[in-house]
Amino acid sequence: MLAEVLTIGDELLTGNTTDSNSTFIAKGLTERGYWVRRKTTVGDDVDEISAVIREILNRKPEVLVISGGLGPTHDDVTMLAVAKALDRKLTLCEECLEKIKGFYEHLYGEGYIDDPELNEARKKMAYLPEGAEALDNSEGAAPGAYIEQEGVRIFVLPGMPREMKTMFERGVLPRLGRRKFIQRKLLAEVTDESKLAPILNETLKHFNVRIHSSPKGFGKYIGIILFGESKEEIERAKAFMEDKGIRFEEGW
Amino acid sequence: MLAEVLTIGDELLTGNTTDSNSTFIAKGLTERGYWVRRKTTVGDDVDEISAVIREILNRKPEVLVISGGLGPTHDDVTMLAVAKALDRKLTLCEECLEKIKGFYEHLYGEGYIDDPELNEARKKMAYLPEGAEALDNSEGAAPGAYIEQEGVRIFVLPGMPREMKTMFERGVLPRLGRRKFIQRKLLAEVTDESKLAPILNETLKHFNVRIHSSPKGFGKYIGIILFGESKEEIERAKAFMEDKGIRFEEGW
Repeated sequence: MLAEVLTIGDELLTGNTTDSNSTFIAKGLTERGYWVRRKTTVGDDVDEISAVIREILNRKPEVLVISGGLGPTHDDVTMLAVAKALDRKLTLCEECLEKIKGFYEHLYGEGYIDDPELNEARKKMAYLPEGAEALDNSEGAAPGAYIEQEGVRIFVLPGMPREMKTMFERGVLPRLGRRKFIQRKLLAEVTDESKLAPILNETLKHFNVRIHSSPKGFGKYIGIILFGESKEEIERAKAFMEDKGIRFEEGW
Repeated sequence: MLAEVLTIGDELLTGNTTDSNSTFIAKGLTERGYWVRRKTTVGDDVDEISAVIREILNRKPEVLVISGGLGPTHDDVTMLAVAKALDRKLTLCEECLEKIKGFYEHLYGEGYIDDPELNEARKKMAYLPEGAEALDNSEGAAPGAYIEQEGVRIFVLPGMPREMKTMFERGVLPRLGRRKFIQRKLLAEVTDESKLAPILNETLKHFNVRIHSSPKGFGKYIGIILFGESKEEIERAKAFMEDKGIRFEEGW
């Protein structure tokens, strides 16, 4: 089950913001058993965004999660780009418009803004690609969207981390099914990392797990992450490696 | 002047590590006047890495910076993938081998490792794509590489942040020329973000600057970054916007 993540925003390409959204999304997808094959980041440009969405659809992942560019400002063009990539029209979501109206009235009531009216910029957020299901934004104004096309389940989420995270948990995860991957993080005590490689390869042959390794410090430890569909399989793989002489410590 | 950044590592795709390397690289490129058009992250897989490098070369950026996967472990396959993508052989860099040898002898002398010998895993790091210029790694074992192909200047850097940063500053930036972009960050006080958009668009028409905007808080402020080749041009653009009624505060 392959997945891809697309994050959108000029601020990610100028080095002004670190893309922690895609970390959060990738972690959630991985824990549901999806293998994130690629992450891409592009700027707030309609043609660029729609081109990269077309490329991703051509790679046929099962899931594509897009984050960023749903707000009211002039450079928030993601829904337009999604519609373009999918060859759909943008259509008004009446229910979304009502919620956006309520959102700004609330902000006005709390004294955050001077004007509660739905100007064009605010209305823009209520337009979704035709046939999309709106994803509720409990933390902000802009709704997300869920769209199925060409066998790919596409989720479009806001870029503000608080809004994105809540929408991911409430609108994305429940649609991804119950299957879960387990991750187990271990520190392998090895003073020569080259001795580890053949043991890892042998483990991969015998057990239904995936293994990631990365050096922690100079050769003292190798950080290991074991991924599998059951705790038991992971424990068996761990025991197998211990039999081959690897000493593990927990966590990192 | 377009640039792309490619970061490599399974840990970035499972949500175990946030990709702050590409933030650092993108910031450095932006400040040298390069426009980072796209960032991509793929896992430690030879075919996947070489496929994405081919895609990037076909988009013809002037600069491609690759980071990650140069170490001695079994999943460090970046140089192999680069060689494959560029249709070059991997060849032994004798000078690199000497440095790697010295590096491990030093670690052994300091008591960090039990064995200073150059085993296969350590030797592997001395192989670079044919015709590549080695980039010195003052902080670790694996050298980087600088390669020109198809009009693209390709830099291959390690993934460990300390090693990557030093190599970027000493091996990449000096090769990118002296031209510099200036960034100026401002907070625009606006209680209605839709009033800002037409002023930004007018500014873009009159001045040789680029503008990024992103909401900071609910409509109270919009974060603005002005990019330009001279401080004077940025100041003129700022004054123009102030004439149109925008009030700025410094920084964010």
